[in-house]
Amino acid sequence: MEAAKTAKATEKYKNYIAILSTWVILATAIGILVGSVTSVLLNTNDFLGETREANTWLIYFLPLGGILIGYMYMYHGKESGNDAALGNNLVIEGVHGKSRVLRRMGPIVYIGTFITVLFGGSTGREGAAIQMGGSVSQGIIQFFKINPIDTKILLMSGISAAFAAAFGTPITGAIFGMEMVTLGKMKYNAFIACVVASFVAHYTTEKAWGVEHEKFIIQAIPELSIVTFAKVIAVSILFGLLSLLYCQLRHGIQKYTEKLFNKNHMIRAFVGGLVIIALTVLIGSYDYNGRGLDMLEQSFKEDVPPYAFIAKLVFTAVTLGTGFVGGEAIPLFFMGATLGNTLSTIVDLPMSFLAGLGLIAAFCAGANTPIAALFLSIEMFDGKGIEYFLVACLVSYIVSGHHGLWPSQSVYGSKS
Amino acid sequence: MEAAKTAKATEKYKNYIAILSTWVILATAIGILVGSVTSVLLNTNDFLGETREANTWLIYFLPLGGILIGYMYMYHGKESGNDAALGNNLVIEGVHGKSRVLRRMGPIVYIGTFITVLFGGSTGREGAAIQMGGSVSQGIIQFFKINPIDTKILLMSGISAAFAAAFGTPITGAIFGMEMVTLGKMKYNAFIACVVASFVAHYTTEKAWGVEHEKFIIQAIPELSIVTFAKVIAVSILFGLLSLLYCQLRHGIQKYTEKLFNKNHMIRAFVGGLVIIALTVLIGSYDYNGRGLDMLEQSFKEDVPPYAFIAKLVFTAVTLGTGFVGGEAIPLFFMGATLGNTLSTIVDLPMSFLAGLGLIAAFCAGANTPIAALFLSIEMFDGKGIEYFLVACLVSYIVSGHHGLWPSQSVYGSKS
Repeated sequence: MEAAKTAKATEKYKNYIAILSTWVILATAIGILVGSVTSVLLNTNDFLGETREANTWLIYFLPLGGILIGYMYMYHGKESGNDAALGNNLVIEGVHGKSRVLRRMGPIVYIGTFITVLFGGSTGREGAAIQMGGSVSQGIIQFFKINPIDTKILLMSGISAAFAAAFGTPITGAIFGMEMVTLGKMKYNAFIACVVASFVAHYTTEKAWGVEHEKFIIQAIPELSIVTFAKVIAVSILFGLLSLLYCQLRHGIQKYTEKLFNKNHMIRAFVGGLVIIALTVLIGSYDYNGRGLDMLEQSFKEDVPPYAFIAKLVFTAVTLGTGFVGGEAIPLFFMGATLGNTLSTIVDLPMSFLAGLGLIAAFCAGANTPIAALFLSIEMFDGKGIEYFLVACLVSYIVSGHHGLWPSQSVYGSKS
Repeated sequence: MEAAKTAKATEKYKNYIAILSTWVILATAIGILVGSVTSVLLNTNDFLGETREANTWLIYFLPLGGILIGYMYMYHGKESGNDAALGNNLVIEGVHGKSRVLRRMGPIVYIGTFITVLFGGSTGREGAAIQMGGSVSQGIIQFFKINPIDTKILLMSGISAAFAAAFGTPITGAIFGMEMVTLGKMKYNAFIACVVASFVAHYTTEKAWGVEHEKFIIQAIPELSIVTFAKVIAVSILFGLLSLLYCQLRHGIQKYTEKLFNKNHMIRAFVGGLVIIALTVLIGSYDYNGRGLDMLEQSFKEDVPPYAFIAKLVFTAVTLGTGFVGGEAIPLFFMGATLGNTLSTIVDLPMSFLAGLGLIAAFCAGANTPIAALFLSIEMFDGKGIEYFLVACLVSYIVSGHHGLWPSQSVYGSKS
């Protein structure tokens, strides 16, 4: 009796170790692959972005680039009812088992991002990283014929790896992969896979490929006081509303143009490109094309134009709303940080602190990932002012309601 | 049509604001109340602990103290099927709506903790804080006749407030309240209430009542490298096993003595007291009675006895397994930190770093709250070595399996 029990326990234990080992190996593979392809994305993007900055006339080819992107998604983006044009939403639906992530999605979004960046659309690249993360995971899933439950976990670890590699923040990446796919709960059963994939991808990117990530420095954090907390809450409401406005405008433009041009993505993006050219000429500066890292960095140090946040909001909503691709995190960082910078003229808080708060809160409200956003603040700003960032994340998360970057996030229970 | 729509939206918005305001007000009330009563707990406990240290003979009254505690729980601890002796488990079940938290639970566990501490049982006080947090919330719930769903959230914010106040860590408190009640997912809908209660309780304790919390300093964090990660994983497995062993022994003693003495908690605790006296005489030191803060602090600075971790494990398992009360977090901190200290003689990592890892990992494995444990490391050690702490939390969380301090935690999905 006892011997049989022990044998059974040993069996169970062996099983447990076997499952764990499998996960560690799979997640390591995903980490290395996703870390490597993300490095390619980051380096190529930097090169193309610099090329555009040196050759500002490239912007006039943006409408043609739009036709190319539209063509790719219309004629090569679909497979058995799954549409790569859904972007991050398709990855999220893949995790929920509602759709199948397409392996071709990663390569397509990479090329689309390169085109968008080279010709001056306003975008980031994190979406591309995440979709490629999903594609790589999907490749492994199909190769090893992984079952549906494990499919979820592998896709989540692909997201984690991509986020960690794209931003140089492994802890945030791990949490983000678990938190992004649902609004309101985290799936711990994917914890190990996400952490391993995240760390491996991060170190692959930094150590093996030598990628360096941007640093934003918060110079001063105010003393903890009720008055400061009140100020942080007030500005965080604004950051949340900013993000809400962006999401509404971006999705509104998408819906409107899809209807107007009867889902012809080539015409949609062509017109979008024309609008971006017009806006660029109108505003008389290239600050709102591409990622806009210069002004983002500037917003932590010195004054930026007071309308910068709204300019970036419109540029990005048009770019991504008409079918260009890339990523929305860096644009949201930009909007939040520049709004923070602008607010520093009327709110008595240090400029770099307001910029940092705006960066994190705008991202949090858009991505609906408060815990990941809090970790992002810890990894970006070395844990400074963590109490304030928690409050900023909470407030912006609540203000944004059930709106966000990705309509496919499932909602579990009301936020309040 | 449009006007009706706008009116409806305005109505919805007003509703939203009203609900939010209610939560902020209720959570603030809980924060102030729980912060204040926790201050009383901490100050009284410090006083009683010092009294015991100055009068070591008090230990000989521990068996009599046990009878008192047993009497309280047997004759005053039950009400319509709900048993205060379940301790934190009753609070957890209250959140899940399976039981009703008793208002009397807090006062009883306070008195029980005072007795345990004065007469030298090995215990902390965090359990008492959390149960009182639950009682205070329950008082508010019954006073305002709160509905079942909101009852959950109020209880969770009571837990958050208590944790924040007991440890001086508001962010960890907020996360802990959400994470403790379930194993494997967090309930974000309680986010706002937990954060507000946690912050208010923390500042009530520190600013209004002048409570000071212990500081543990990690002197050196090793450079990030694969070798160091491997070492961290190896020691974290040991910390996880340590916690597992403690939980098994503690619950084993409880089951065994309950059966042996036919649920007569007075005899159970009397015998438990005798065993503690015998153990204390045997080991010839009072280091393992009470909270043991001196040795816990020492373990970050200089060598402690190599058997300290196992001594504390046995002392605490006997104390709490036979019906004394208080808390298990500080004892777990002690076990983990002293095991880390002992390991520093064979593992080439800085002593204070190993002690810190042990403290966090042992707590994580026992409480099954990896994200809260990670935040605890950030708040305790100023964000130093966060990558290592994440790995330590993950590993110890996995090693501990589905065992933990509180059997009432529900399990959502497998951990692996």
